[in-house]
Amino acid sequence: MDMLWSGWGDPARATPLPGTVVGLLRDLLGVEPCDTAPVTLDGIAVPASPLGPAALRALAGAVSGEAHVRTDAEARIRHTRGKSTPDLLRIREGDVDDVPAAVVLPAGHDEVVAVLRTCAEHGLAVVPFGGGTSVVGGLAPERRRPFVALDLRRMDALLALDPVSRTATLQPGLRAPRAEELVAGHGFTLGHFPQSYEWATIGGFAAARSSGQASAGYGRFDDMVLGLTLATPEGTLDAGRAPRSAAGPDLRQLVLGSEGAFGVITSVTVRLRPVPRTRIYEGWRFPSFEAGATALRRLAQDGPRPTVLRLSDETETLVGLARPDAIGAPDGRPDAGCLAIAGYEGTEEDTAHRRERAAAVLRACGGTYAGQEPGEHWAHGRYAAPYLRDALLDAGAFAETLETAAFWSRVPGLYAAVREALTTTLTEAGTPPLVMCHISHVYENGASLYFTVVSARGDDPVARWASAKRAAADAILAAGGTISHHHGVGTDHRDGYVREAGPLGVEALRAVKRRLDPEGLLNPGVLLPLD
Amino acid sequence: MDMLWSGWGDPARATPLPGTVVGLLRDLLGVEPCDTAPVTLDGIAVPASPLGPAALRALAGAVSGEAHVRTDAEARIRHTRGKSTPDLLRIREGDVDDVPAAVVLPAGHDEVVAVLRTCAEHGLAVVPFGGGTSVVGGLAPERRRPFVALDLRRMDALLALDPVSRTATLQPGLRAPRAEELVAGHGFTLGHFPQSYEWATIGGFAAARSSGQASAGYGRFDDMVLGLTLATPEGTLDAGRAPRSAAGPDLRQLVLGSEGAFGVITSVTVRLRPVPRTRIYEGWRFPSFEAGATALRRLAQDGPRPTVLRLSDETETLVGLARPDAIGAPDGRPDAGCLAIAGYEGTEEDTAHRRERAAAVLRACGGTYAGQEPGEHWAHGRYAAPYLRDALLDAGAFAETLETAAFWSRVPGLYAAVREALTTTLTEAGTPPLVMCHISHVYENGASLYFTVVSARGDDPVARWASAKRAAADAILAAGGTISHHHGVGTDHRDGYVREAGPLGVEALRAVKRRLDPEGLLNPGVLLPLD
Repeated sequence: MDMLWSGWGDPARATPLPGTVVGLLRDLLGVEPCDTAPVTLDGIAVPASPLGPAALRALAGAVSGEAHVRTDAEARIRHTRGKSTPDLLRIREGDVDDVPAAVVLPAGHDEVVAVLRTCAEHGLAVVPFGGGTSVVGGLAPERRRPFVALDLRRMDALLALDPVSRTATLQPGLRAPRAEELVAGHGFTLGHFPQSYEWATIGGFAAARSSGQASAGYGRFDDMVLGLTLATPEGTLDAGRAPRSAAGPDLRQLVLGSEGAFGVITSVTVRLRPVPRTRIYEGWRFPSFEAGATALRRLAQDGPRPTVLRLSDETETLVGLARPDAIGAPDGRPDAGCLAIAGYEGTEEDTAHRRERAAAVLRACGGTYAGQEPGEHWAHGRYAAPYLRDALLDAGAFAETLETAAFWSRVPGLYAAVREALTTTLTEAGTPPLVMCHISHVYENGASLYFTVVSARGDDPVARWASAKRAAADAILAAGGTISHHHGVGTDHRDGYVREAGPLGVEALRAVKRRLDPEGLLNPGVLLPLD
Repeated sequence: MDMLWSGWGDPARATPLPGTVVGLLRDLLGVEPCDTAPVTLDGIAVPASPLGPAALRALAGAVSGEAHVRTDAEARIRHTRGKSTPDLLRIREGDVDDVPAAVVLPAGHDEVVAVLRTCAEHGLAVVPFGGGTSVVGGLAPERRRPFVALDLRRMDALLALDPVSRTATLQPGLRAPRAEELVAGHGFTLGHFPQSYEWATIGGFAAARSSGQASAGYGRFDDMVLGLTLATPEGTLDAGRAPRSAAGPDLRQLVLGSEGAFGVITSVTVRLRPVPRTRIYEGWRFPSFEAGATALRRLAQDGPRPTVLRLSDETETLVGLARPDAIGAPDGRPDAGCLAIAGYEGTEEDTAHRRERAAAVLRACGGTYAGQEPGEHWAHGRYAAPYLRDALLDAGAFAETLETAAFWSRVPGLYAAVREALTTTLTEAGTPPLVMCHISHVYENGASLYFTVVSARGDDPVARWASAKRAAADAILAAGGTISHHHGVGTDHRDGYVREAGPLGVEALRAVKRRLDPEGLLNPGVLLPLD
């Protein structure tokens, strides 16, 4: 099934906001119903593809058939940009400035190589396209030349599974649920469940260093990758002969996070875990975000480590966003404090042992057990927040997220600085926001912070958010955070990324890019600035 | 204290082989006492330093004083090559073909930068020198131009310690015991205890992706690194603003394992753990290497994970090398089977719980508890094996090690192939060897194999070992292993590394090197082949 072209997910699952929430938004943030309806798919005027017959013939040859080269308006609109709020606002207005010249669907590694060769011959840029769920402008390259969206959906096979080593080799176009299904047939799970789980792909997880909601237990996607194959205009790079090695820099870690700028990931070998026999998610309440963060830190540093561990701040808890299917409902009371969710997956014995010992730590840090109901609520709504964003946009609100990570000692300062930057910028622009935050990924040495911002839509929300985002990026870098913990760089974070990596870091990566992609075909301007 | 110039460690700790072992070596391997005595330090004819007064003055200026630029014979001999057996055999014969032109001792990052600039101006290569413990030719660059050994021993400070985030920033010249002492003052440990522990340095651990004997519990050194600073001829690169990030490829993982070829690591931020309150090491016996390996795999995959976990094969167990201070002694009996050592470090509660549950797994896999005596023996002798090698060389034997790693399903084939390659090559060359092996590092998805080879010295042992090493490298690559699990690449493994990384992998890294070190000053020919 294709995703909603103008929003998130399965159109059948879209649900309008409850009237109570609409009222709340109006009273709190001055949100007024939107008076202009979004355009329809048919109503968008897409310019004709700039590709001539020779290029189209060559592309069709590369992917064994013209059925796999699409230039129709719908296919091209569906591959225009990703799913950030600015992306949605623009596509809802029919803005297709970033439309690809064609959508090309290769069936395997060799066809990807052939497409790259063809694009080099015809001066076309190439944008690898997995689930299309980028929220950082990763699918909208600089527009110096036409580009082809390389949709990897036909590359959706489980290539190999080694039950002894507990590894699976997967093609990049596999959506996460299908990948889970394939390995579950052998008794395994990847354990990778980001919010984009239902739509995102294995290749995208690797290219953008995705991190799932169960990262406390299963690790991030870049922790799971043991090997990968990269097709580049200069040939193929294979990395990963052993779990770990002292044979030079880790080439896997050079490809992970390269966001299609170095090549197209055509296979990924990942670590597997047994399907857990037990899953328990439960809630804990803390009197403050600080107390809750200390509890999370203690579990991350000294254990036992839950499989899922997250903590909403006071505002997020109050609004109920900790449980996206219950917004504005049960937790909407001032005594709610800060809600944490702790989840345990594994064997019955191990789960029970960890849960019991973690409870003692959470209690010692000032936590109060809130039962399994909030945990079940969270688990039920865990992939629902992007639908909620569509509903908010429909109701005339603006809603968007951003995220960062830092070492533990910097987390309080980072939290304060980003909230302040977002609140000040948006208030001064006339749309005072609600800024909410949670910690959703913990490490021994630090944690992520994930912010959700809701405000009235106001005039020119794309430009206003861009300026709020710049202020947040400045605050993040000044407070010692990273420009992205798991969304990636894309084009939206590129300036901040350049500041974070430093001139020599950027130059080292540009040297790699020039060697693997000398003509700069791949995702021009994504991750790294153009020359 | 300086290491023995012609061998390992503290000269006062050198001990000759017991007479029983000498007899065993003669009977088993035909080892005859060596009839030529090694040269003395004074007896080595070192050519005059090729550096002229201008270069020496400039170098002295870079490190604030001529006291920190040494061109005397002793200093230069002590910085000639590393500590592989071929290195020792050559230096014992007075072969100083790889002698540096000078030894330069910078006091900090800025002085390193100044030395690099000076070397560029004077056409000198630069070899970063930490503990000097490389066993893969990492300190012997291609001899196209004179080189300076950049000894980092003056850079031995704890720069910062963050008890909340549990991180410490260390200078590269800190030897591991001193680093441990500094962080222990704050209640922490690094948990990094490789065999070279007593002599090796923080910078070397990072540059060569060291892995310690307690890696099952504390991880490898490259797991511990959260940040680092690299001084290059083109400027400074800082990496690591958060434990993990989605902001591009991981630049830390590009520097780790770069073996001085990209720049000089001038600080390393590492993860800390609390000093364990309890340490227990114990022995388990398995009827076969296969049964023991299965037990290790089960613990690595399903837990609980000991802090130390290693398994010697039948030959190593028989010879007693599992306990280097007891070689030829208690375990020298045919019923010894395969000895495993399991160690537990942590709080009392955690240690007891893991130990009890691990015992059940080890028993279920056919293991028999052998008490704490073998564990204590192992712990007592854990840094002694390199001294034993010196004693073997003194007694006329040849002894050397090599190591690899692979995914679990490939481990049995890799084990057989490497043993076969070493045995055949050395037997055909007239020096039938004793080949021993242990697994010393386990991961969910694979393990390392560490081989020890002992034979008669025979004629031209350096050339003979080079050909055995080539055969082993071929076997490793054919069986799907990595060319090095924790020794690194250096010059010895460079050809195998090029085959492992593949042409495009090597080209990507050469592109980085050219950008950071355009004149090719840094460790020429180490890690990457020259242009």
